[in-house]
Amino acid sequence: MDDIAPTPRTQIRRIPERGVYDRATIDAILDEGFLCHVGFVVEGQPFVIPTGYGRAGDRLYIHGSAASRMVRTLSSGVQVCVTVTLLDGLVLARAAYHHSMNYRSVVVLGTAVEVTDEHERLVALETITEHIIRGRWTDIRPPNPQEVKATRVLRLPIEEASAKVRTGPPVDDEVDYTLPYWAGVLPMRLQIGEPIPDSRLRPDVPLPAAVRGYRRA
Amino acid sequence: MDDIAPTPRTQIRRIPERGVYDRATIDAILDEGFLCHVGFVVEGQPFVIPTGYGRAGDRLYIHGSAASRMVRTLSSGVQVCVTVTLLDGLVLARAAYHHSMNYRSVVVLGTAVEVTDEHERLVALETITEHIIRGRWTDIRPPNPQEVKATRVLRLPIEEASAKVRTGPPVDDEVDYTLPYWAGVLPMRLQIGEPIPDSRLRPDVPLPAAVRGYRRA
Repeated sequence: MDDIAPTPRTQIRRIPERGVYDRATIDAILDEGFLCHVGFVVEGQPFVIPTGYGRAGDRLYIHGSAASRMVRTLSSGVQVCVTVTLLDGLVLARAAYHHSMNYRSVVVLGTAVEVTDEHERLVALETITEHIIRGRWTDIRPPNPQEVKATRVLRLPIEEASAKVRTGPPVDDEVDYTLPYWAGVLPMRLQIGEPIPDSRLRPDVPLPAAVRGYRRA
Repeated sequence: MDDIAPTPRTQIRRIPERGVYDRATIDAILDEGFLCHVGFVVEGQPFVIPTGYGRAGDRLYIHGSAASRMVRTLSSGVQVCVTVTLLDGLVLARAAYHHSMNYRSVVVLGTAVEVTDEHERLVALETITEHIIRGRWTDIRPPNPQEVKATRVLRLPIEEASAKVRTGPPVDDEVDYTLPYWAGVLPMRLQIGEPIPDSRLRPDVPLPAAVRGYRRA
């Protein structure tokens, strides 16, 4: 897969060795995350709103009600930033100054476009649903025409994007390695619990394979 | 604790019953999260950057190198949005349209101010370190004057803020409850793994109580 050439806006300048521009890394982070944080500006004030999303090739899809400020703002064709962050651990150094986190994040910049084509809108909704849980789309009631109409879908091309990745142990100043302080990494990951069936679930409906033993890539 | 009066900018308009404005809820979410997403604007383009933070009373502290674009931009006194999101589960409804997530999020709007007072800067660094892992500050080498000088600290008052919380089972259309599709919640939480000691750890240094059996509030 191709790399994305960093632009002056996506070039990682602080600790440049953490910057990653290859599409495989960017896509893997986007595909593992559940939530993105969407940044947009209203009257000079930035807003950062968490929401679901899905990726289909070079396109990020997000959706929402036509009544939401985020969706209304983005539909008007403004500049947007979509960030996905995965926390992998706490990095505990000997020095306070060198404490850090292990993480993988992606920033996508651009202008979102409202998807007006009804077929693409349906594809986007399938993409967003399948992003949350693969195999779900064929095991639910699909959106009816009214629901498709009530949903606005926004498309953001994955063109101007970069990833930032920190892995591994703490890095202390050489003189500090002899200090009597514990140092290392406390790993973290998203844990998936036991499914909680809805209290009104039909008793003859089994737990689907997509939910049973659900794991994130 | 007092409530925060919603402003036109923090009032939850979409699904208003999810809006929460009491300080206890807002503080609990801020105290449980590890990462915030900071939104700021450079030449009309919003940026959303993940970073650590800490809370001391009515103040949010974030920090970074004087070389970082985020810190430089925020130091100039621009409007900022800090968002913290905790993902609690996937909400799987019978209808695609009613799929959702259980989450708790806080949005803080305002203008960050650079902390110039050296004592407050040190307090802020302690707050940020203790936010990650309580009890750590007394078990590390504290920042030396050069490190304190190299770190810029930003303070954002928790004045204009709101939380948004979704909990509980899916809510389907009444007619859909008879459909033969599985519905329920797949809970998620941050799992803390076994500490990985640094390969250069002094062999006589035990695992501190703050790290051993670490749990998030």
